Amino acid sequence: MANSDGIIDWRSVCPISSALDVLGDKWSLLIIRDLLIHGPRTYSQLLESPERISTNILATRLELLTCLRLIERTSPEAASRNNAYRLTEQGAALRPVLEALGKWAGTHLTDFHATIVKM
Amino acid sequence: MANSDGIIDWRSVCPISSALDVLGDKWSLLIIRDLLIHGPRTYSQLLESPERISTNILATRLELLTCLRLIERTSPEAASRNNAYRLTEQGAALRPVLEALGKWAGTHLTDFHATIVKM
Repeated sequence: MANSDGIIDWRSVCPISSALDVLGDKWSLLIIRDLLIHGPRTYSQLLESPERISTNILATRLELLTCLRLIERTSPEAASRNNAYRLTEQGAALRPVLEALGKWAGTHLTDFHATIVKM
Repeated sequence: MANSDGIIDWRSVCPISSALDVLGDKWSLLIIRDLLIHGPRTYSQLLESPERISTNILATRLELLTCLRLIERTSPEAASRNNAYRLTEQGAALRPVLEALGKWAGTHLTDFHATIVKM
């Protein structure tokens, strides 16, 4: 995530760490997921996803993903709220990450749904 | 992530969303990475990773990953700080996720290292 100066705080040179520096949160990959599944989506359409992202988190993530050139506006000159976002080539290249995450969860997390984790 | 009652707050039934409910942060997958690369690691060894995880975040993540049965102690009866953690079968099954993340970042994030993101 970018700090207050707009600089990504890279923790190390490890590619996995760098990927998590920009995508290591609960929401960014869900936006990528929606654009992979549905194609271009407007801000309002992205808000309608079942996970119910909040407006401020969505706006922040869309801005960061655009700066990182993982997504882009379909009509950059139009007002932002009426615009659609689509994946760039490097955003679409995250498909194998999402497929691996989904496959893993489908196999290994099923038992945990709706259960209490004793902590 | 578990809430204050120790219950995972599943946002939807989507496997990708569920994976991010438990692993969607900047640190959990780095702990998995270290255990995949090095084999069993103690709390102190995990603190020495180049990303410099803080003690409280490491303790919280180890507890959650243990509850989710992604990692386990090598000697459960020993004092926790002197114990080593290793991956369970379902933790080791995250290898394709990490490989996909690393491959993506190695290809698509290189240009962004040490650059300013204009926000």
